[in-house]
Amino acid sequence: MNILILGAAGMIGRKLFARLVAEGSVAGQAINGFTLVDVVAPPVPPGVNAKALTADLTVAGTAEQLISEKPDLIFHLAGVVSGEAEKNFEKGYAVNLDGGRALFEAIRREHEMSGYRPRVIFTSSVAVFGAPLPDMIGEDQVLTPLTSYGTQKAIVELLLSDYTRRGYFDGIGIRLPTICIRPGAPNAAASGFFSNILREPLIGLPAILPVPETLRHWFASPRAAIAYLMHAANLDSAAIGPRRNLNMPGLSATVADAIEALRKIAGDKAVGLIRREPDAAVTAMISAWARDFDASRALALGFEGEGSFEDIIRIHIEDELDDVSQMRCKRVP
Amino acid sequence: MNILILGAAGMIGRKLFARLVAEGSVAGQAINGFTLVDVVAPPVPPGVNAKALTADLTVAGTAEQLISEKPDLIFHLAGVVSGEAEKNFEKGYAVNLDGGRALFEAIRREHEMSGYRPRVIFTSSVAVFGAPLPDMIGEDQVLTPLTSYGTQKAIVELLLSDYTRRGYFDGIGIRLPTICIRPGAPNAAASGFFSNILREPLIGLPAILPVPETLRHWFASPRAAIAYLMHAANLDSAAIGPRRNLNMPGLSATVADAIEALRKIAGDKAVGLIRREPDAAVTAMISAWARDFDASRALALGFEGEGSFEDIIRIHIEDELDDVSQMRCKRVP
Repeated sequence: MNILILGAAGMIGRKLFARLVAEGSVAGQAINGFTLVDVVAPPVPPGVNAKALTADLTVAGTAEQLISEKPDLIFHLAGVVSGEAEKNFEKGYAVNLDGGRALFEAIRREHEMSGYRPRVIFTSSVAVFGAPLPDMIGEDQVLTPLTSYGTQKAIVELLLSDYTRRGYFDGIGIRLPTICIRPGAPNAAASGFFSNILREPLIGLPAILPVPETLRHWFASPRAAIAYLMHAANLDSAAIGPRRNLNMPGLSATVADAIEALRKIAGDKAVGLIRREPDAAVTAMISAWARDFDASRALALGFEGEGSFEDIIRIHIEDELDDVSQMRCKRVP
Repeated sequence: MNILILGAAGMIGRKLFARLVAEGSVAGQAINGFTLVDVVAPPVPPGVNAKALTADLTVAGTAEQLISEKPDLIFHLAGVVSGEAEKNFEKGYAVNLDGGRALFEAIRREHEMSGYRPRVIFTSSVAVFGAPLPDMIGEDQVLTPLTSYGTQKAIVELLLSDYTRRGYFDGIGIRLPTICIRPGAPNAAASGFFSNILREPLIGLPAILPVPETLRHWFASPRAAIAYLMHAANLDSAAIGPRRNLNMPGLSATVADAIEALRKIAGDKAVGLIRREPDAAVTAMISAWARDFDASRALALGFEGEGSFEDIIRIHIEDELDDVSQMRCKRVP
């Protein structure tokens, strides 16, 4: 079993790689080697049979070269994020749409030559859904993205289903909830405050809350995201049926739920580090996002999410901090 | 007002052109000229200011050349049909996806140079929906195409919404019901029998019915299809909102409804020309198609469909036959 990870230098890619190395096998088969690809070279620990490459799927021939080695399992996590895709129309479409399609096309051509048919796991996003939305988004909700990023993800989802239906590969699309708590430093993403208001107070630093505490959204921990990807690699895909893109389980919770969980785990002093600075533009944008999902298809297939914000905070402490009382960060893998 | 019609040699394209010539104006503006484009040269009657071109959007530079003349209104009807797109994967994606995207990109680039922002009307299809489906497909039904053709239409719908949202053009996607009665000779399309069992007996010829009479489907006449396109050209698009692709109104009816309407209009002798030759494969395929739609958004915007199969048959007689009792075909425009 050889594994190709595209987007291996990102937070999810690095954690996924570490988990695969720790497991040593996928779907009952031993892992023989990895190819890790990103626009910057992904880190490789000593003693692991992994080739780290700097490559860009938008460059002609790149996908063909990667697929010529016929990896058995491919994680396609690569892409430019929402804000960048909105700011730079051409780059977003080139990377998120044409990059994915170049990968799928390289696989199809290899399939037609040799019968090659890998499993392809693609990380999509709840950004494929756009307002107006019901309080709970059902399994049959139309995809109406309101960003170019969401449009690109929705298109690659459609391609993934069609290429799978035609037998070129065995694709599974994973619509990830907003990942919380993202490790590392605060970033400029509009949704960053969901992580910031927990991560920063846990290490004694202030954080800004730009939205009302009543705002509800949809969350999963980084650990859950990795578990989804691992489960997608391990499961019997025949059970999925023709609709190959799945809403992952998540936690529907308000900002107040997150703050109360922080209070229980880290006390009033931590909560006191959250500064309310209402931002009407951020509030309007995030109010249009999905609040809750019916993920019954994924749950029936064995995907599992978190039950509470306390779980999400404890997972962050276990995976990212040496000890919350010491307020010291572990190295992110 | 200059109008570009892509796919102008097809049945819809020819009828639309004839209707536009007859009207002489669109959205309150006189029509100054037409550019008619198809892979075969569209016919142009004498005395009409229309340029007929043989061109292929998949050839680099074609879209740019067509857009360099800045048509005010563009009908994008071009494409390869479902069966061909399924048989020839590369051709279907090249024509139906890349052709549409090349057009949209040429408009975007012209927009960025000059502020050009035409109205673009795109004919999509109910093939964007795939089983399992509810008895009535709501406005929020997820798009789950089960053909490459349906996938390509769904992708161009997504692109149309995103390019419109960004202001590059003013796009409207029109999901046409199955067109019935299609004029001309019987063709090999799986859905052809819906038209054949009415059109052929009306002129004294036999026709084969491969499915049970209980089978329900979704229909509109060619005249209604042209009316949808005309209305999309005339309406105030601000009323549509961000979801730019619309289920058109149609008639939900069974094969038995169609046959009873034929009996009322043309008598038992005509109905007697329908030969039942059950085909399990065709029945299975068409049973998975959409049976009924909630088209309330389109209805609220003023689109109007037919009320009964008798209407559909009478429209065929008025538009395609000199006189049903004479059983003679008019020239198709």
